[in-house]
Parts: sequence; C-alpha cells; structure tokens
Amino acid sequence: MPELVFPLDSTKRFTDQAIVGHNRWHPDIPPAVTVKPGDEFRVHVREWFDGAIVNGDSAADILDAPLSTVHCLSGPFAVEGARPGDLLIVDILDIGPIPQEDSGPLAGQGWGYTGIFATDNGGGFLTEQFPDAYKAIWDFSGHTATSRHIPGVSFTGIQHPGLMGTAPSPGLLSTWNAREAALIATDPERVPPLALPPEPRDAVLGSLTGAEYDRVAAEAARTAPPRENGGNQDIKNFTRGSRVFYPVFVDGANLSVGDLHFSQGDGEITFCGAIEMGGYIDLRVDVIKDGMSRYGVTENAIFLPGNEGPVYSQWLAFSGTSVTLDGEQRYLDSQLAFQRACLHAIDYLSSFGYSREQAYLILGAAPIEGRFSGVVDIPNACATVYIPTEVFDFPVIPSASGPVTVDPGPGVPHAAR
Amino acid sequence: MPELVFPLDSTKRFTDQAIVGHNRWHPDIPPAVTVKPGDEFRVHVREWFDGAIVNGDSAADILDAPLSTVHCLSGPFAVEGARPGDLLIVDILDIGPIPQEDSGPLAGQGWGYTGIFATDNGGGFLTEQFPDAYKAIWDFSGHTATSRHIPGVSFTGIQHPGLMGTAPSPGLLSTWNAREAALIATDPERVPPLALPPEPRDAVLGSLTGAEYDRVAAEAARTAPPRENGGNQDIKNFTRGSRVFYPVFVDGANLSVGDLHFSQGDGEITFCGAIEMGGYIDLRVDVIKDGMSRYGVTENAIFLPGNEGPVYSQWLAFSGTSVTLDGEQRYLDSQLAFQRACLHAIDYLSSFGYSREQAYLILGAAPIEGRFSGVVDIPNACATVYIPTEVFDFPVIPSASGPVTVDPGPGVPHAAR
Amino acid sequence: MPELVFPLDSTKRFTDQAIVGHNRWHPDIPPAVTVKPGDEFRVHVREWFDGAIVNGDSAADILDAPLSTVHCLSGPFAVEGARPGDLLIVDILDIGPIPQEDSGPLAGQGWGYTGIFATDNGGGFLTEQFPDAYKAIWDFSGHTATSRHIPGVSFTGIQHPGLMGTAPSPGLLSTWNAREAALIATDPERVPPLALPPEPRDAVLGSLTGAEYDRVAAEAARTAPPRENGGNQDIKNFTRGSRVFYPVFVDGANLSVGDLHFSQGDGEITFCGAIEMGGYIDLRVDVIKDGMSRYGVTENAIFLPGNEGPVYSQWLAFSGTSVTLDGEQRYLDSQLAFQRACLHAIDYLSSFGYSREQAYLILGAAPIEGRFSGVVDIPNACATVYIPTEVFDFPVIPSASGPVTVDPGPGVPHAAR
Amino acid sequence: MPELVFPLDSTKRFTDQAIVGHNRWHPDIPPAVTVKPGDEFRVHVREWFDGAIVNGDSAADILDAPLSTVHCLSGPFAVEGARPGDLLIVDILDIGPIPQEDSGPLAGQGWGYTGIFATDNGGGFLTEQFPDAYKAIWDFSGHTATSRHIPGVSFTGIQHPGLMGTAPSPGLLSTWNAREAALIATDPERVPPLALPPEPRDAVLGSLTGAEYDRVAAEAARTAPPRENGGNQDIKNFTRGSRVFYPVFVDGANLSVGDLHFSQGDGEITFCGAIEMGGYIDLRVDVIKDGMSRYGVTENAIFLPGNEGPVYSQWLAFSGTSVTLDGEQRYLDSQLAFQRACLHAIDYLSSFGYSREQAYLILGAAPIEGRFSGVVDIPNACATVYIPTEVFDFPVIPSASGPVTVDPGPGVPHAAR
Repeated sequence: MPELVFPLDSTKRFTDQAIVGHNRWHPDIPPAVTVKPGDEFRVHVREWFDGAIVNGDSAADILDAPLSTVHCLSGPFAVEGARPGDLLIVDILDIGPIPQEDSGPLAGQGWGYTGIFATDNGGGFLTEQFPDAYKAIWDFSGHTATSRHIPGVSFTGIQHPGLMGTAPSPGLLSTWNAREAALIATDPERVPPLALPPEPRDAVLGSLTGAEYDRVAAEAARTAPPRENGGNQDIKNFTRGSRVFYPVFVDGANLSVGDLHFSQGDGEITFCGAIEMGGYIDLRVDVIKDGMSRYGVTENAIFLPGNEGPVYSQWLAFSGTSVTLDGEQRYLDSQLAFQRACLHAIDYLSSFGYSREQAYLILGAAPIEGRFSGVVDIPNACATVYIPTEVFDFPVIPSASGPVTVDPGPGVPHAAR
Repeated sequence: MPELVFPLDSTKRFTDQAIVGHNRWHPDIPPAVTVKPGDEFRVHVREWFDGAIVNGDSAADILDAPLSTVHCLSGPFAVEGARPGDLLIVDILDIGPIPQEDSGPLAGQGWGYTGIFATDNGGGFLTEQFPDAYKAIWDFSGHTATSRHIPGVSFTGIQHPGLMGTAPSPGLLSTWNAREAALIATDPERVPPLALPPEPRDAVLGSLTGAEYDRVAAEAARTAPPRENGGNQDIKNFTRGSRVFYPVFVDGANLSVGDLHFSQGDGEITFCGAIEMGGYIDLRVDVIKDGMSRYGVTENAIFLPGNEGPVYSQWLAFSGTSVTLDGEQRYLDSQLAFQRACLHAIDYLSSFGYSREQAYLILGAAPIEGRFSGVVDIPNACATVYIPTEVFDFPVIPSASGPVTVDPGPGVPHAAR
Repeated sequence: MPELVFPLDSTKRFTDQAIVGHNRWHPDIPPAVTVKPGDEFRVHVREWFDGAIVNGDSAADILDAPLSTVHCLSGPFAVEGARPGDLLIVDILDIGPIPQEDSGPLAGQGWGYTGIFATDNGGGFLTEQFPDAYKAIWDFSGHTATSRHIPGVSFTGIQHPGLMGTAPSPGLLSTWNAREAALIATDPERVPPLALPPEPRDAVLGSLTGAEYDRVAAEAARTAPPRENGGNQDIKNFTRGSRVFYPVFVDGANLSVGDLHFSQGDGEITFCGAIEMGGYIDLRVDVIKDGMSRYGVTENAIFLPGNEGPVYSQWLAFSGTSVTLDGEQRYLDSQLAFQRACLHAIDYLSSFGYSREQAYLILGAAPIEGRFSGVVDIPNACATVYIPTEVFDFPVIPSASGPVTVDPGPGVPHAAR
Repeated sequence: MPELVFPLDSTKRFTDQAIVGHNRWHPDIPPAVTVKPGDEFRVHVREWFDGAIVNGDSAADILDAPLSTVHCLSGPFAVEGARPGDLLIVDILDIGPIPQEDSGPLAGQGWGYTGIFATDNGGGFLTEQFPDAYKAIWDFSGHTATSRHIPGVSFTGIQHPGLMGTAPSPGLLSTWNAREAALIATDPERVPPLALPPEPRDAVLGSLTGAEYDRVAAEAARTAPPRENGGNQDIKNFTRGSRVFYPVFVDGANLSVGDLHFSQGDGEITFCGAIEMGGYIDLRVDVIKDGMSRYGVTENAIFLPGNEGPVYSQWLAFSGTSVTLDGEQRYLDSQLAFQRACLHAIDYLSSFGYSREQAYLILGAAPIEGRFSGVVDIPNACATVYIPTEVFDFPVIPSASGPVTVDPGPGVPHAAR
C-alpha cells in the first residue's frame, strides 16, 4: 500500500514545505527520500508554477508567468541499490488531482488551466499565429473536464505526469549544457529563445544551501526539455497502469516527478498546453541490473502505457505537409507538417463559430493524437492530427448541411502588452 | 453493389491494360471513367512499381528500382457535378490484395514486399544509417502478414491506399512546381535529392498521346509527395470503413488512387516501407457543394478512419529527442526526434538477436504508431514510436532475466553497388 | 496461400455441386476433402437454406422456410493424423460473402437476410410476442450493412461462420440422440418443438448413397443445436483472425463449416437472426496431440477471437430480470432475463417510431452484446443487452427533449397463415 | 465539485454513523439527504457486510457470513422535483476504495475480498460443485488487483457499484413481495432458498424508529435481487463515466447506492463474487420529466457505460450448452449453459495447476465477459465466457507443448461445517 513519502501542504508555498523539492536537474541535488526496490509510495506534486496561475477570467498571469520558477518537482527519490547502467522500473499505480480538496486557489483543487504563452514570454508551437497570452480554466468532474471558456466540449482526461526522470551524471549534465549553449549561441537574442541556459535565479535545489547551492544553481540544467533521462516528455498516455524503464546515471537513480496534467493532446501544442494541475501520484520502483547494456538502452526511456485510456471509436483527422504558410517548400519537416495539420484543424473548428484561440486550446487540452504519417515522401512530410468526435456535444463531421453554429460564449481570457 | 469500372489484368503491364491509368498529377489527364455522386464502384490497382520488384531473395531489384515509373495510379475518376470549391466525399467500402489470385509473380498475389532504398536511389528516413538496399517478402494469410526474412513476427495488416487524391488545378500545379524547384535549387546535386522535378521519362498519362502527351509530361507533378490534393499521404489507418473529404480543384474532381499497402507503420519509415501490393478498392463518392469555404478547407484532406483496425492493448514505446547522433542540439525538430526514437527501437530489438535491418523493416511494415509527444519544450522535440507487443511471438518487454535470443535466420536480402 | 478445395457454383443447387456437402452430423459421412496439418485452404459455403429465401418484399418464404433442409455444410474435411483425444486447431484466415459476385438471387451475392420465424415453423427467442413471419433484406457495402426495410441503421458487420465443428463419434451421436429424444418425449406435440429428432427427409450426406445413405440418414443428428463438437454456436465474434480448438472424436477430425453470417447480435435472437449469407472462408488447420486430456477439454470448443472487430465506444444498455411478462417470479433464469432485456430494448426503440418487428430485427442483426450481468442474486438473474449507439444515424440516448421521430418507412415484410 | 453529503467513519459501525443508511428497500425510509437536479456530490459507501469479513487466511467468516445484514446502502438521496414517471439521470463521476486509507481492517482500506458462500449459507452459481466456503484476499495497487491466495494473476479492476437504485412505490413493493413469496412457496425448505422474504432481524432503516421502524422492517424488500428499480444489478462495466437512467416511483426518486466492487466478472458468479470493498462514489443527478412514458420505460434501468474500461485485445473463450453434468438435455437454458461454460473454463485452468476453487474465484473477480451466444438453436442454448489472457503472467493459450505448471501456493482459505 502506498505510504506518503513526499507530502505537500496546499496552503504553503513549494519552498516552505516539510520536504522541499527542486526545479533543476543536477547530480548533486540530495535525495529527498530513499526507497527500496519493490516499494510502493505516494508522492504529492505541486502544479508546475507553484500557484502563480489563478482560477480567473484574466490572462495577465499567463502573460507574466514566472518561467524561471518551473518545474516544481517532487524528489529526488533514491532507490537503494540502483547503479549507473541499470534500468529503473517505475510503475504508475495511480494519479489524480489533489485528493479530498475539490475546491481552492491551487490548480489541482478541482480545476486546472491551459495557457497560450505570449511570444515574448515563452512562446509556443504556433506562436507566430498566436503571439498574445490566452488562458482557459477547466473544471474537473471525476475524470471529465469542461471549461466555462470553451462551450460545447467535454472529454475524459488521461491524467499523467508531464515530467519524470532520473538525475543526470556529471558528464551527461556537461553534455547538455554544452550542446544547448552551442545552439543558443547561433542566435542568442532570439525571442522566444532557442533554449534555456542554467539560471540561478529562482532555482530550488532541495536541501542544498550556501556555497553548494550556489555552485549547483549555476550548473544545473533547466527542466523544460526532455532529454536522455526522460524529463519533460509530455507523453499523454503515460497514465495509471503505465510502466517506464529509465536509464540510471547516478547511484540511487534519483528519480523526480512533476508537471501533472489532467489531460493533454499529443504534442502539448500550446506549451502551457495540457490541463495543468497539482495532485498525487502513486509509484512502485524496481531495478533491472545492467539493463542498459543488456537491452541496448543508452539514452532514452522505454514505456508501456496503461490499458485504461478512454476508448474512442470515431476520429476526425486533419493532415498537413511541410510547406510554410507563405508557400515555401521545406524538406521533410515533420514539425512544420504538424503545425500545418493543427492550423487546418483550427481553420475547420472556426467554421463552427469558435474563435481561433478556443480551437487552439482544445487541441492542446483534449486527448487528440498527433501522428507521423509520412516521413519519407520527398519533399513533403505528412503529419496528421486526430480529434475524437465525442469531445464535442454537436455534430462535428462535414455534411451537406454545413456546419452548425456553436455559441462561443465570451471566449477565452486574453492579455497582451 | 460495386461495379468494376477500372479493371486490370495481372498478366499484362500497366500500360497495356484496357484502360490505362497514370503516374503523374496534371489537370489535363483525361478522366478514365465518369461516375455519379452516390455511386459505388470497384477499382483494380497495380502495385506501385508495376511488377519490377519480385518475390525472391535478392535485393538487386530494390537497388535498381525504377523510380521514374511510380506510382501506378488508377483513374482519374470524374464525378459528375463536382466543381472547384466543393468537397469530394470518398468512402472506402473495401480493400484488399488481388482477389482470387493467391499466388503469382505480381505483388498482391498473396504476397507483398517492403524495401529499404539505397541512398543513391531513393534513400529513406534513416538512409545515413542504412545506405544500402534491403528487401523483405511478406506472405499474406487472410489479414495476417509474416515474412520468411524476419522470423518471430506476425501481425494483422491494416490494408489501405497509400495514395489517393484529386487532380490539381493549373494554378495549383504551377505552385507545386515553383516551390519544389526552389527547394531543389538550394542543393541541386544532393543525393538523395531534395525533391523530384517533372520527369517526362516513363510518364504514363492515361489516354493522352502526341503533342498533348509531351506537353503534359513536361509539366506534370511527380506523385511522391503528399500535397494539397491529398496524394501520397501514407496514412496507415485509412482502411475499409474510412471516409475522406478532398478539396476539389477541377471540374469532376478527377480522383485517382494507388499504392495499396497490406500494412504499414506510421511514417512508412523505410520509404518503400509499407508492405506494397496490388489489389482492389471499392469506393463510393459524393459531393458537398461549396464545402471548402463552408468548412474552412483550402488545401488539405479531412479523414474519418474506419472502426475496424486491429485492437492492441499493450504497446512498447520508445522516445527520441532532437539531438543528432553526433550530439548536436537541434531546435524543436520532430523529424529528427522521430528518427532518434526509431533508432532507439532498432537498438532495442537488436538486443534480441535481430539484425538492424530486420528491426528497421519491422518498424516500417508493422502497425506501429509514431506520435508527436512534445513539440514545445525548447529545445527538444519529443517523439515516440509505439510497437504492439503482440507483433512478436516472444516476450519483448524488459525484465530482470534479460532479452531472450531470437534466431534471426538468414536475414533480409541485401544489395549494394 | 489458400487453395480452393471445396468449390460451389452459385448457379447450381447444393446437391448438384461437384463436391456435395452435408446437412446432418454423423461419423460415417465420408470426408469430402483431406488436408494436412498446417494446410491453408479456401472453402465455399452455401447459405443455410440453399437459396430458398429471396431478395424480395414478401415474407412468405420465411413463413414456409424448409427447415428440414438446413444447414448446408461444407465438408467434412479430414485432417491427416488427427486422432480422437487430440485438439484440432482451426484458424479463420479470412471470410466474406461470395467473392466477385456482388449481385444475384443467392444470399451472399451482395445481400443477405434476417428473418423472424413463425411460431408454427421454427419459432424463436420471442416467439410468444412475435408469432408471425417477418423478413429484412440487408445490402452489403464492403463490411457495412444497411436495409431498405429498416431506415436509419447501418453498422460494420463481423462476418463469421455460425456453425463449425468436428464429427461426433458413434457413442457421442448416440448420446445426443438419446438425450434429445428424452426431452422431446416430455412434450412431443409442442409447437415449436423442444428439439429436432433425426429426419431422413431432405438429408444430404455427401457421397453416401443407397443403403448406407438410408442408415446414416435415419441416425444422423440435426445441425440446429451447438453440442460437444462445436456446431451451431453462433458466436458473433468468431471472425477473421480467430483461432478455435475443437475436440477430436473421430479419425481425421472431419471438420465441417457452414451458416455464414454477415453480422449478428449476441444470441442471434430472431433465430434466423443473423444476416444470413453464402460466401467463402479461408482456414488453416493444425493438431495438438492428446490436447483434450492435457488441457482438460472433454466436450467443448475453446476460442481466441480475432482482434479486428469493430470498435465502439458508446453503448446503450438495457437490463432484464427473471420475472415473466405476466409478473411471475422465476428462479435465476438468465434466458428469461435476457428476453426481458431485449423486450425493454424493443420498447425503447419503438418510442422513436420503429415498429416492434423492426426493433427486434435490429437486435438480431446488429453487433449488439448480450451479457450475463448477475446470475446469483436470488431470485433474479440480471441480463443486459448493449447496443452500439453508432448503429443509428440519429441521437438515440435519452434526453430532456424526448425521442426524435424516425420515419420507419413501409416496414418489414410480414406473412402469416 | 463534489461536496461530501454522506460521510462514513471507517472506525465506526454502519449503524453508529452520523447519518445512518439502510439495508432494505421501502418507500417510507426517509431520505438521508436531499439534492437538486444538476448537483454533484460525494457519497461514502460501506462494504456490504459492514466489516464482518476480515483480511485473513481463514474462510470461517465467509462460512458464517451474516446474510441478514446486507447490503449496507448509502442514501436515500431525494432529488428535488423528481416525480413518479420521470427518469432519474445518475452520472458516476468517480469511484474508488476508501480514500487516503490504504491499510486497515475494513475492506476498501487497500484490500478487498471475494468469497464462495457455502450451500447452507447463501450458495452460489456453482454451489453443487462448490458446497463449502472459500475466500480470497486481493490487494490494490492503484487500479490493479493481485491476491496472495491466487498466484500468477493480476488485472486492472473496473470499479463499480454493484447496487444502485430508486425506491419502490408501495404498489411496486407489494408486487415484489407477492411474487417472491409465491416462488418461495413452491419449495419453502429449499437450501439455498429460492428467494429471501422480508426479514426484520438486522434491518437498518435510516432514521426510522419505534413502531414505524417495526412496520417498515416487516414489509421492506431484501436487497439481494435486482428488480424494476435497478438494485443489485452487478453490471461490471458500470464505472466512472457511466450514466444511468432510472425509473422514478416515488416523489424525490430516493436513490440509494452500495456494494462497491473493485472488480468483477460478468455474472459475479461466486455470489460474493466481485472483489468487495467500501469506498466512495461521486454522483451527479438530473431529471427527465415524464421520461418513462416518453421513452417506453416502465420497469428497467438504461445504462451508458463509461469509456474508460481496460482494453484487452486477446481473449480466451469457453462455450457451454444447456446439458446438465449428468447428461440431461434441457431446453434453451442459458443459465445452465453459462454454468457449463464456466465449468469448462475451470477445468481448463486446473490443467495449469490451479485448484478448482482458485479458478472459480478468478472467474468471479477478474474482468471476464459472459455472453449469450446462441439462445434459439433448439434445444441447446450456447453461452460463452471470455477471459482476457493478459490476466495471467504465464502463457495461457493451448499449444503443442502443453500447459505450463503454475505453483498454486498454499491456495485459498477453506471452511466447512
């Protein structure tokens, strides 16, 4: 039975808790808790912005979201006996919003949010088309999400941690910092930036203090990207019943977890794109000795998704190719093809009366699927986005009678400078 | 009941048939057949290389595959009353290999093939890692595929047309040719090429002859890439029971179809990556007048996949990020991230005894899913590839006992210059 | 590749074919064909009434259906080396209506039928409520069925053989005849009868002639019921990709197959309840030596359904308990509970404008599920019937606005004496 | 957000709670709580025996289970404005074991139990073959159940309320009592009994006291059977995300709920057959005015199951027909056919080393499906039981190599007089 090993008090800030987590990756962040192979344990998880985004009808909080503070992670959890070269098995036994707290000011207390970041504070997948800040608030009823900002939509969320991973070794951390610095150096003034270098400001490093805190804060990697240790992979089907195998880079593996999502579409395309929440996660860990070399794993996680995701039988799919909106042909660019597929879906949903921002936020939050359809047919990659038609409470399939008109209501909160 | 409107004789070449199809896109290729809205009809489809790839244990035919001859398309089918601006509804009623011909020299006669093209003759998704030509032959038993070249694997195929679409307008064709020429011009000598310009050699243009043939052959677009008209989209779930909505660019819509696949993984990653076959497809067509403007569709197809795909409940997933094999950090490049995910899967399957080419061919042919998992977490895109574990007849999940050893047999045919 | 080992000519009667099948069970019916373990082969199958039911708008043919002629079975197929005590493995590789014959007078030529038998000629599950004869004709479009007699309904059929099994041993046949005669003897004049005794009239016994024909015809068991050899099990998910393990009772196993269905609901509740058709089936056979004792199998088949059934995500379910329509309480009677569940569904569908016969025929033909929900809660069994809501092209879920009205059209053909 | 309107303290008995529920059906049991249409609310639910069955290795508690005390129900919940003739909509928003109490002596605190009742104290589906008492304890890890008494098995539970329903009208209650008394009168001394008459002993009737308590206790119906008000329907897919429509027989509808199950197979075949637990359920209610007549509903519930049940793609199915173990032919008896199917499955699982009781308990607790396959093929009904093969951690499909041997461990606790 899961013992609560990492508690959080919803009334206190992330840094004022009995056990303090972290928001950077570094091998020298001390384990917060030590567990044994085979242990099951419960972990509380703070929403990634530690409460900075509120349940309201303004998007000012998204516009000024404190990006240097993310992600609030629970851990590290050291696993006895885990050694570099092993594979760490992590089972997600259960996951959900903050238990027994169905209302309150903290995301996860019965509600969550999805945001579109402004270009000058984060940006996102379609930031050229959506340069301002927007927000939608979602209410939870069991596993179902609805939003007062987006009428006509409800869906079964697939709760999952957006971010989970093991600590990097010193060498791996150096590799990260070097390669990302090299990328940044190609266009250091870009807005939004190409990557995020170490940032001592707002670093939370567990129990570290003093000079050691300063050293680690200066070196520690940001948590935004997924990397060899797993990290911010945002795999929407990584829900209860899932098993993951992580490479181990340091003694004890030092597992951390955060960024819980109530639901997300493949890609988390609005950046702050899932329905963000705090909550709990129940884990079980085990170790495969020397699993990395035995299974040919060097730098990636392997997943077995659970079998409880919602079943949908009807999907509406939109394709895109790697031609820019300006008509420029790019070579086998699936990132671009997926952008175009999503824009086609947004065009389509707008024909029913939704604003383009509403449509974009639906794609970020609902359990859509984003697929690589063709990656070899030069020069065009083909990507597709699949939307379950059950998400909508009106007929959403093309017909001879044309689209019905949905009342979009007052729309989604908007903020710009 | 479907009337056979486009017959093919398996003993004759594509150009010697009673009705000759085409292998280029051009608005002036005359309709081969005219149908009415609501009509159901059967179409025979030749495998994309018109029999050049044989059921044997040499990959020489793949090494020298005649790329200028593809794709053998059936059509165009003019739909009475369809006008530019309409949406053409196409239902796939049924699809399968060549009926009643369960053996013979033509792919689709009870067998099909998957190939890896050599870098100097086509290339492919992982051509840098796999520069030579390889081939696997698959035998069909009902909807199940197995290969003498890849032991231990069998799966239910999702038969689908890799390529279907409407004819471009003259303006759209010009756009294609201009933008692709511009891309080619950035590196005209590249091997493999960035894109394929019009190629009169081997052009098949239906009933066109003489000067009109020459004019059209010089202008007509190649069929390799998917474009605004649908085309070579390679959407693996586009099987029986599916409905698609195509934009109409010319009077009659002029629908064509080809490149049938017995099965394919998302992405068709080995280029000649599906299990290629000839066969039949039963279609029903209808028209939504002015559907393009009413539904906000300008340049893409919309799909409703059928509900008969095989159900799998357990998937093994591998992730990848946009860091090159050489360790260079790229910015949110999902194409690269998916390559890395596939390479991780190949590394993993190799630990069971498969050659890397066998593993690569499995990913191309089996009903794997390729997903955009994170497309916003700078600087790393995260892509995932999901393999149904039922595909393998041995336990394929990591465990403490390590991988079992599969006898890879003599392996896949290989050819190189 | 499947070789056609049991051909049928659609223009000839079942008894005039090159190889004549059978319509009774007996160990001494000679094998029509001998195959080897591992063989794949194609079998043509005649619709169960050999063409007596026509594609028309009268139910007179159902009223007078020649029950003594059924079921037209293909086989027996002897499997070399199979011995009593073995388990016979049968894989269904593929199945479908009569290939390449999409129109014609024989069910399976692009169409099929569902009937409600009259009480005095067969009866059925709800014969007390539906004493007359009714018929619905269904048209096939690929795997989809629609009926001109039942508007507003279409569904993906799960094609399957209603009847397949091995030959009984002489002892097993005697057991059948004895126990069924004992049942009949309890009420020999009942209409409809309790069971069907051997009936020499209309017996078809393969190549048997003369005295041997007469002897076997007098002893052979009717094919209506499922028994220890499999037989008329009417398992609606027994479609392509399925594997079944049959007990072997005679040398060679002597497998036979018939009664193909385009689609059926669990229970085949209208008796002639599936969508009946002729067609083809591709099989592969193998043998597990001594499988019966090793796996504890004595008198039943074991099934592995295929994974290609249509996926439905929304079901409307009706429950029933074991109380008669007259209000009498019965003890844990699941048969009655399922009748009441089906009647509740019929009541419900009637509120949309369907006639009760239309509703009944939908339940027989569409891929509904019939479930044992509670079988222990004395005194009431609870049974449930699940209808996929996608079957209907109108909203079928209860709502505050009440049921929409469906135009039932002219309804289903009806005949009575 | 769900407000807790019916709290239970795990340390106190069911009758000592702040709000006392009930364990009988009667229109005059006063509502415990009144809610409004559209309200969402949380309800705690006690396990059906109020803690009489303990987490131990003896089955003595099952042998002497206090049957007169069941089922501990939460409610009644009056819904403002609901009137006889309406349909009550109930949505199950969420459900699970006792939250935040993962260990303790009460079923639902991280564990649950499945029992086989002895013939002289309850009996069950296969009581003739299993006359003694047996028990299995199951541990919960998230949504997964495993048992120390049944090695080699684990599965994803589909948590659901076994029992939910509206209060009967006085007339309906009289009907129940009359028809069940008539059945009992046919064999009043039968063991186990045919039905359960009103039983004042151990009746719990909410806030009723004194003479009113005595009157109602003498009339109130037992909760064992499902009836026109829903009740103990034991529908295993009735989990989170489900919607049910109940007929309303009294003002306020007076909804009650109980008998939570962590998992159950179709049929709940061991009587105490689900994995029994206490826990919580979150509900939302609404009303369709005059829904009964508008939708043709008079005496049954209508269900829309949720879309989150675990997905299984491979099932092992066993069939049974309506012939008794003694060889007697019965007429179209699906209850018997399902018993025979289950016995075939037990025979089969025993060949792997399980005791027959272990096999029986697996069928009761795991998410098996029980289907009506043929209900018309005189004289044999055909029933099938489908077991997901993923339930077992060993290969469970018949093969030439014969069954592997599973170590059954010490087996399931057993008790007999």
